[in-house]
Amino acid sequence: MVLLCVGRVGVLLYFVGLGLSAKDISLRALSVLNSCDIVYLDSYTSILAEGGLDEIRRLIKPGKLAVVGRDFLEEHVEEILRKAEERRVAIAVIGDPFIATTHISIRVEAAKRGIKTSVIHASSILSAAISESGLQAYKFGKSATIVFPEKDYRPTYPYRVLLENLMRGLHTLFFLDFKAERGASMTIRDGLSLLLEMEREEGEGVLDEGCLAVGLSRLGSEKSITYAGSFKDLQIYDFGPPPHTLIIPGILHPMEEEALIYICRAPKKVVKEWTRRATAIKLRGTLKG
Amino acid sequence: MVLLCVGRVGVLLYFVGLGLSAKDISLRALSVLNSCDIVYLDSYTSILAEGGLDEIRRLIKPGKLAVVGRDFLEEHVEEILRKAEERRVAIAVIGDPFIATTHISIRVEAAKRGIKTSVIHASSILSAAISESGLQAYKFGKSATIVFPEKDYRPTYPYRVLLENLMRGLHTLFFLDFKAERGASMTIRDGLSLLLEMEREEGEGVLDEGCLAVGLSRLGSEKSITYAGSFKDLQIYDFGPPPHTLIIPGILHPMEEEALIYICRAPKKVVKEWTRRATAIKLRGTLKG
Repeated sequence: MVLLCVGRVGVLLYFVGLGLSAKDISLRALSVLNSCDIVYLDSYTSILAEGGLDEIRRLIKPGKLAVVGRDFLEEHVEEILRKAEERRVAIAVIGDPFIATTHISIRVEAAKRGIKTSVIHASSILSAAISESGLQAYKFGKSATIVFPEKDYRPTYPYRVLLENLMRGLHTLFFLDFKAERGASMTIRDGLSLLLEMEREEGEGVLDEGCLAVGLSRLGSEKSITYAGSFKDLQIYDFGPPPHTLIIPGILHPMEEEALIYICRAPKKVVKEWTRRATAIKLRGTLKG
Repeated sequence: MVLLCVGRVGVLLYFVGLGLSAKDISLRALSVLNSCDIVYLDSYTSILAEGGLDEIRRLIKPGKLAVVGRDFLEEHVEEILRKAEERRVAIAVIGDPFIATTHISIRVEAAKRGIKTSVIHASSILSAAISESGLQAYKFGKSATIVFPEKDYRPTYPYRVLLENLMRGLHTLFFLDFKAERGASMTIRDGLSLLLEMEREEGEGVLDEGCLAVGLSRLGSEKSITYAGSFKDLQIYDFGPPPHTLIIPGILHPMEEEALIYICRAPKKVVKEWTRRATAIKLRGTLKG
């Protein structure tokens, strides 16, 4: 209780997860946001699956919410922390904080100055995508983000992550790029095309249009879609508006095969053929390793 | 709209995530649970970090909630599905559905019979533990559950998962066992001791009391604790009541080192020493691979 003497008790910077859609907000998040003097809402890391920021705005007492972009949260850390030393401040983000965001540096900076921080958890694309796919959570390997290629920058990093996971029989979750500044959200179709391009570049002979993938869109909303099939099936399927997410399974347990067939509506033939191929890729990994 | 003719529209089985604590419940989950005729609440897969099932009970209109154990949800699938064909039924679980639970077989069975299912997402230990640790989400490899050893069953599987991740420089998240039938929840101390036992058995010379770990307890509650340090530090630290979770980091980025030191209060020396050791283990993996 020494802290009482220096007037620090009650000094709190909250990182509040809003969940995947406006209705995913929790009782705790609502109560914390309404107890704060200032709420900065990050509008650039991701987008809500359903309901706009206006819907969030309506849930919070008027006058305290500031919707901020990338520049603000990166360049005004000093200002945010100064305010947090005097008033209750929250940084609200879509999903669970620190999963898809880079605000950890703000939390570290706050801790260095003795500002207590607290995280309010919420639904996250990480667990939601795994949950909806019916695949087993503990069989996912490293994940990666597929980014929009730039003129001189066409990274094959996601392909190498996938290959490494497949050689261990593991599933891979791909986050798809979101560029708030130009309102561009990568689609499942784009993501699959980019993976096939990387295959051509790296030439490991692992991916083609017959491979199995799971496409997931707008998870957390009433209009969410989960659909599994070959790359070719998914490239012509209409997943609707963003956000989109992609999973490439590794070796499938019979119960996972059933989940993909009955819940994600994957053609049985594509699933069975992939199980055969994924087993062969893993064997190649074992022989190599 | 052909479905209207066969009277199937509106037939819905919901899988509702309650989040990590009673206050983590979302507006959507509340509205769905209160729109259902029957709510089965799974009381055996995990425990709430804060607030009891009574608190959940108070949020739901009286008379429709049944708290059920393992036997019921495993043996009464037929009964649950029959009810879902006539009335709105929800299965409510702690966390995000299908992450720590095995109810996917109920969902598959429902799909086979043409019963529409829907998942309501919530905060999950998977994203919450990653988020609180300050470690980067995409650097986690495969995860595993450390289970209570039985007389003739002392699996070293979690150790092998850890070793595989470390050889790739990746972090490992360990779920700790929970045995509802005897109210036993594994502690961080138990988990670390078991890992050290597995080291002695497997003899790979990777783990000892000086290794770095992150212990997390009651995430999602106001009394959550996150504390990082050597195995030895964590084995004498009081993390309080369950649920507990454990992370063993792989190679650390400088920002991750800072997060462990400033947010998780890890001794700088332990972190720096671990970065050196984790790099050596990865090198060993590269040479071997």
